[in-house]
Amino acid sequence: MTGRIAPRAFSTAVGRFHDRSDTPRAFLERCLETVDALEDQVRAFAAIDADAARQAADMSTRRYADGRPLSPIDGMVVGVKDIIDTADLPTEMNSPIKKGNRPEADAACVAAVRQGGGVILGKTVTTEFAISRSGPTTNPHDPTRTPGGSSSGSGAAAGSGMVAASFGTQTQGSIIRPASYCGAAGFKPTLGALSTDGVHPLSRSHDHLGTIASCVRDAWRLAKWTADIHPGHGSAGLGGPHDGTLTPTPPARMGVLRLDGFSELDDKSHAAFDAALDILRRAGVAIVEPADDARLARATAVMNTIFTPSISMVARDMRWPFTGYRAQHPDGLGPRILELLEMAEQSTIDDYRGWMREREDARAAVADLARDFDAVIFPASSGPAPVGFDYTGSRAFLTGWTFLGFPTFSVPGMTVNGLPCGLQIAGFADRDYALGRHAAWVEDRLSDDAGRSPDLKT
Amino acid sequence: MTGRIAPRAFSTAVGRFHDRSDTPRAFLERCLETVDALEDQVRAFAAIDADAARQAADMSTRRYADGRPLSPIDGMVVGVKDIIDTADLPTEMNSPIKKGNRPEADAACVAAVRQGGGVILGKTVTTEFAISRSGPTTNPHDPTRTPGGSSSGSGAAAGSGMVAASFGTQTQGSIIRPASYCGAAGFKPTLGALSTDGVHPLSRSHDHLGTIASCVRDAWRLAKWTADIHPGHGSAGLGGPHDGTLTPTPPARMGVLRLDGFSELDDKSHAAFDAALDILRRAGVAIVEPADDARLARATAVMNTIFTPSISMVARDMRWPFTGYRAQHPDGLGPRILELLEMAEQSTIDDYRGWMREREDARAAVADLARDFDAVIFPASSGPAPVGFDYTGSRAFLTGWTFLGFPTFSVPGMTVNGLPCGLQIAGFADRDYALGRHAAWVEDRLSDDAGRSPDLKT
Repeated sequence: MTGRIAPRAFSTAVGRFHDRSDTPRAFLERCLETVDALEDQVRAFAAIDADAARQAADMSTRRYADGRPLSPIDGMVVGVKDIIDTADLPTEMNSPIKKGNRPEADAACVAAVRQGGGVILGKTVTTEFAISRSGPTTNPHDPTRTPGGSSSGSGAAAGSGMVAASFGTQTQGSIIRPASYCGAAGFKPTLGALSTDGVHPLSRSHDHLGTIASCVRDAWRLAKWTADIHPGHGSAGLGGPHDGTLTPTPPARMGVLRLDGFSELDDKSHAAFDAALDILRRAGVAIVEPADDARLARATAVMNTIFTPSISMVARDMRWPFTGYRAQHPDGLGPRILELLEMAEQSTIDDYRGWMREREDARAAVADLARDFDAVIFPASSGPAPVGFDYTGSRAFLTGWTFLGFPTFSVPGMTVNGLPCGLQIAGFADRDYALGRHAAWVEDRLSDDAGRSPDLKT
Repeated sequence: MTGRIAPRAFSTAVGRFHDRSDTPRAFLERCLETVDALEDQVRAFAAIDADAARQAADMSTRRYADGRPLSPIDGMVVGVKDIIDTADLPTEMNSPIKKGNRPEADAACVAAVRQGGGVILGKTVTTEFAISRSGPTTNPHDPTRTPGGSSSGSGAAAGSGMVAASFGTQTQGSIIRPASYCGAAGFKPTLGALSTDGVHPLSRSHDHLGTIASCVRDAWRLAKWTADIHPGHGSAGLGGPHDGTLTPTPPARMGVLRLDGFSELDDKSHAAFDAALDILRRAGVAIVEPADDARLARATAVMNTIFTPSISMVARDMRWPFTGYRAQHPDGLGPRILELLEMAEQSTIDDYRGWMREREDARAAVADLARDFDAVIFPASSGPAPVGFDYTGSRAFLTGWTFLGFPTFSVPGMTVNGLPCGLQIAGFADRDYALGRHAAWVEDRLSDDAGRSPDLKT
């Protein structure tokens, strides 16, 4: 099955759209072939509308033929996580209480895609409200394993080539984890860079809208366009050129964040990570360890303490709207949601202020690294996807950058026991563009070296 | 008619609830008497549910009888602006395209009131989506005049004693203006201090949830409870004690912000403002003019330049969801909304970033005043309410503190030609509690002096 999996890069196809050696309609048909081949098993989609997508792709094809694409994402085949409102497709959030929910309006990010001539193929499976019960999706690389959550379908669809890119959301680890497990690139931008209007809330202090795509460039391209059209609340969106391109740029120095999560890695995952560091070193990047840098050691220590304040803030934020849902539908919510609501009932606004202070301290400790490092680096997940579906994977490497609200990428390229896992390249608030250029360069290095460096595949 | 108008202070009644010389049910009945007497003319409510309110008030009455009120707002009679979702009442936003709209869930602020045992009386009239066509509400002090907008019904209901307090929203001037015109106290907190979840958006960079009430103490009390339960996105909410009290505290120094708007004041409004300053001076406050303070002069100059960036940001933010509404309902939106959408189409994200920089500059110039001043002071409106309804009044004194996102109060107490107008006491980001204590003290001084100082009534 793995042989049929081929992430479909839009950023390379778009050049051929311009010279007419390829078309958005043909690109879409390739995606639909993969859907036909894999969807019965992968179940990435909660809803799909191939007819509407073909219409949109045909219109896009005509625009390229006329030399007038609407935007850098014109013709991009996009999946939309099913907690994000769409006016033409149900938005059921993998929840029985949202069965048949038909939003009146598109979410801001969906409106941005339509405005840019993107081709929306369907809604991708989410765990219940992006936090509780798993959906039916399987990992495209191994049907016995989780695709990761909560953006399960977004990861599986992008990782398998059913779409070029998809929207995901991350409140703890929900973009980076499925991207890592499904062999896709994931991008969680700075908190608020993309508008979450029309995205069902979990925790406004932690909810990030981002992208999962065939490659770093596609993840960036979709996010950049969306942020240009509908940036978050009073946010400046994302920097960089409006054509959505990233010029791969080598980082001079990167710090390894030796989080406690490293203890969860098996030997092969460890070896793959070490091999990736070696590739970057050989390419000229100074890779610095916490043992050799006091500020990096301090930031690592601080980031190992953030799990309690983070989930506590999320739980307290969830009281709206979930307390109301619980009252209206006593049996309608999954166990994790009920557990978090109970946890929230033990807390006060003064506790919340304390967690916010912890967040400010953590932000300061990490921001301090920007003086010496272009980015930090650590695994995107504790190895490849685990077997089974209830458990969508560890958050040991994920909660940190979500809590900070700083940008991070999962860069594909490592393989452990034939399964993909990602390298996390994480950066500093509002410096998403600089980070994206480094992430694209790292992706190129891992890809260049994949043949020569068998260590990456352990 | 004016004789029947009597704002109903909850903060003084609550002491009598405790000693059982008054009850929430009796308080509600007094509100309902005012509704019966005035509502045919004032038309403050878009929807009202006296039965549900009586049930809630009876439950509150029992809690006080048991010595166990749920919160500092238990029994408070509250109106809810009709752009704020309520699960038990329609939310029609004074828009034909929202006719019959029944939200599934209460907005976060409404949920907070219910959790605290507040008594929701009904939905108060808003201008269309809080920005365009006026509703049917008239000014309770003069039926030929506007109540101000966009929180028209919230101002009229609180100013006339139909409720103790109401929720309003301010994206330009929509809390402070109706409070001023209707003789109520208005409080626009720091941007984001109260959650806007479940409030229809206009501009996430400018939308403030706040309160209009019989007096500064009630406006604070409702806002404080709401912020303690559901603060805004990653916000610390409001400071001060959790019992929602304000200890009136004299400011040592206040600066007069001599905005260009002063040219709009007629002689009597000018004289009333000068009389208010005199009262404060006599009470020991140093009142400083821009002519005598370079930083104050600079802040005044900067605040006279913010109108274009402010409305431009609002217009660009409005593209979601209004561009979608316009596509679905070509004839369904009022002229002001269409005009702003057209304005937004001329702008880019780079323009938006420029306006954000202007906002940062303005914030810095005003924040700089905090070193020397406890608050700044200027009129809450360009005199009393104008005659007519289409025009809801000047924003000359209103846009500034909205653009900044800093807290401000409209303090009632001045009267011009028998009509109320407010004094604006404006402060600094996240220092809402300090500001509230000064506003309460100013309110007491104006009230104490109202008999002795005929100049306040010009």
